[in-house]
Amino acid sequence: MSYRTLSKEELESELTRLKREYKQICGLSLNLDMSRGKPDKAQLDLSMGMIDALSSDDLVNEQNIDCRNYGVLDGIIEAKRLLSAMIECPIEDIIIYGNSSLNVMYDTVSRSMTHGVCGSTPWAKLDGKVKFLCPVPGYDRHFAITEFFGIEMIPVPMDDNGPDMDMVEEYVSSDPMVKGIWCVPKYSNPGGITYSTEVVQRFANLKPAAEDFRIYWDNAYCIHHLFDEPENQDYIPEILEECQKAGNPDIVFKFCSTSKVTFPGSGIAAIASSPKNIEFIKNQMTVQTIGHDKLNQLRHIKFFGDFDGMVEHMKKHAAILRPKFKTVLDMLDKEIAPLDIAKWSNPKGGYFISLDTMDGCAKRVVSLCANAGVKMTDAGATYPYGNDPHDSNIRIAPTFPSPAELKEACKVFVLCLKLASVEKLLEN
Amino acid sequence: MSYRTLSKEELESELTRLKREYKQICGLSLNLDMSRGKPDKAQLDLSMGMIDALSSDDLVNEQNIDCRNYGVLDGIIEAKRLLSAMIECPIEDIIIYGNSSLNVMYDTVSRSMTHGVCGSTPWAKLDGKVKFLCPVPGYDRHFAITEFFGIEMIPVPMDDNGPDMDMVEEYVSSDPMVKGIWCVPKYSNPGGITYSTEVVQRFANLKPAAEDFRIYWDNAYCIHHLFDEPENQDYIPEILEECQKAGNPDIVFKFCSTSKVTFPGSGIAAIASSPKNIEFIKNQMTVQTIGHDKLNQLRHIKFFGDFDGMVEHMKKHAAILRPKFKTVLDMLDKEIAPLDIAKWSNPKGGYFISLDTMDGCAKRVVSLCANAGVKMTDAGATYPYGNDPHDSNIRIAPTFPSPAELKEACKVFVLCLKLASVEKLLEN
Repeated sequence: MSYRTLSKEELESELTRLKREYKQICGLSLNLDMSRGKPDKAQLDLSMGMIDALSSDDLVNEQNIDCRNYGVLDGIIEAKRLLSAMIECPIEDIIIYGNSSLNVMYDTVSRSMTHGVCGSTPWAKLDGKVKFLCPVPGYDRHFAITEFFGIEMIPVPMDDNGPDMDMVEEYVSSDPMVKGIWCVPKYSNPGGITYSTEVVQRFANLKPAAEDFRIYWDNAYCIHHLFDEPENQDYIPEILEECQKAGNPDIVFKFCSTSKVTFPGSGIAAIASSPKNIEFIKNQMTVQTIGHDKLNQLRHIKFFGDFDGMVEHMKKHAAILRPKFKTVLDMLDKEIAPLDIAKWSNPKGGYFISLDTMDGCAKRVVSLCANAGVKMTDAGATYPYGNDPHDSNIRIAPTFPSPAELKEACKVFVLCLKLASVEKLLEN
Repeated sequence: MSYRTLSKEELESELTRLKREYKQICGLSLNLDMSRGKPDKAQLDLSMGMIDALSSDDLVNEQNIDCRNYGVLDGIIEAKRLLSAMIECPIEDIIIYGNSSLNVMYDTVSRSMTHGVCGSTPWAKLDGKVKFLCPVPGYDRHFAITEFFGIEMIPVPMDDNGPDMDMVEEYVSSDPMVKGIWCVPKYSNPGGITYSTEVVQRFANLKPAAEDFRIYWDNAYCIHHLFDEPENQDYIPEILEECQKAGNPDIVFKFCSTSKVTFPGSGIAAIASSPKNIEFIKNQMTVQTIGHDKLNQLRHIKFFGDFDGMVEHMKKHAAILRPKFKTVLDMLDKEIAPLDIAKWSNPKGGYFISLDTMDGCAKRVVSLCANAGVKMTDAGATYPYGNDPHDSNIRIAPTFPSPAELKEACKVFVLCLKLASVEKLLEN
């Protein structure tokens, strides 16, 4: 029974009923969180072998480097081998960092502000305003970085194949102030979209007006499948290789980390790019640090053995995450689908379900949830400047609550979504 | 027998003898390193308890935070307690970072370039050239940061009490483009100088022309004494407190790390400053990262227990370092002092002995050493732009070689110092 076919009286009666239910739920003093892409306790427990992975025999690496001491700016060879397999690049084209790929992305933009990219004018010295393209809905922390540096953000709509490439090509090829685009190419945050082969190839074949334009390719969920069967997993062509084939070897910075593989606070991160870009970055890094935590790099090696070990480990994450996604999707299918008041994604990987309410309802839903003790990502957060022009996108992060908590949180969310929708329909 | 009293013929005969000896030493194919302030293997072994400090019972902190997961931007309370004791500041006024205080300093300067300091104009947007005062001899990696950002570096001479404060006061109070000064206030790098109480108080009472002037107070060696007896240790007044007393609460950024306490590659670092500065920094950090490695913070806590544990631990480092410093100083006293060709420091802590050759000899000594298989810090590295106007300062880092290697390396150094000095005297 679609809400859209109800009469005013029927809607009002439904509103009364929903308000009563909402009042009851508010009385429960819930304290649940579906706001961030955080692993839950069971997932953290999967990596407990990391805690005592190292022994006194393990501290010198295969190149006879004492990993306790200073040095090795770009990471030990074993860590490069592991993460280059993860990110699918040659071992020479990677730099291993500390615990946060977000920090690597921040540093990459920050360095461009003060020093440009491979010899270009520092962005802070340019007369006009630097611009970034921002596929939407997207990742709020990406947008926070570009906003912090005063970079103008231009939203680019996404469909099931990725960003609108006509628009991307037009901006990138015509405007030399367009210096970058934020991409989460696989199991995107929040849409769960994986870019199609055509989209990836159009990225690789971009003809930027700016010599210092780069694609900021945040491969955060590259091995974060929800299903073990290959036919239920998404694949994308490797962008660095595609760029090289297209004669564009330098236009991508690729990022990854083990934050959602081992421990979110204690993972290792990496950047992969062309030899020219990597050399440029290392020249800056050598001023910034003597090197990142090599013992933590070793700890990852000892724990996984090799990339196959990491892939097997990810199946254990999937086994925990799959039923959680199912909980949310089942409830949406059962409670919301018949009402015709929202659309949502059904991702094969990543950490989020993206839901679009009727126009003008997202903020109200999130606010009703908060008031009932269920924290959601702020409405609008998936758009630059927090500005969702339709006020419709909500990012659901089902991973952090326990299965029982998640069911409670979903009930609240579904109720709030109904309530806000009926309110909206009555306004019209 | 001072070289300075020798006749030309005597010098030439000495030169022949030294050259013969040098040739022999070059035949030994030595490969020794006195170039960097790196702990040796015995020192690293002191912290082996760090490797298995954590067990599965230790991963939730006293505030019930699961330290494996995301979050806690500024560090867990236990780490703040430990490092605020080390750096002598209130626990509210500290932020815990990753493994490198150098990285924290770099980020501090980088943020000033793009965002100014507490609301001031970003340095990259200023018309004139930003300037930093650089007490000399000083730390090459400090100078590398300011040089990287195009900041003009002005050398300020040091004496046994610290930098020339007349000069510092004059520059700081008269030139609004002077935005900072690099300081290693205790057991300085490389001079081993500890600033006098008067110098510290004059720092605290500076009247900067620039609102965004800050003292970059790198307390790298705050607990790095060579001797256990209090009367053989240096003390300085706590600068943040002195600044507050002087009505200048915001003019200091204080840095420290455990790089030379636990493992150099896997320590934890911190910044301490006034509440206003700390709030400003946190606002930026929240864009840069979700938080640093909390498990490594916990590891430090479990290993040391508390600050007293850290102080006891430092005595073990001192027991290893003391005889090494003695080896160098004894050899200099015996072999060089009578010749009247150099002066050197006799520090009570830190990682370096600073030696001044006759004018125009330092580069030659370092080059002779390199050729004989003994790596020294580049001559000039202790000055901005690598420019030692007298070509006389050499930083000796006695910590990394084993005791036996150190003796060999010192023999080579002493020989090269003699050889370069005789060559120089014969030029005149």
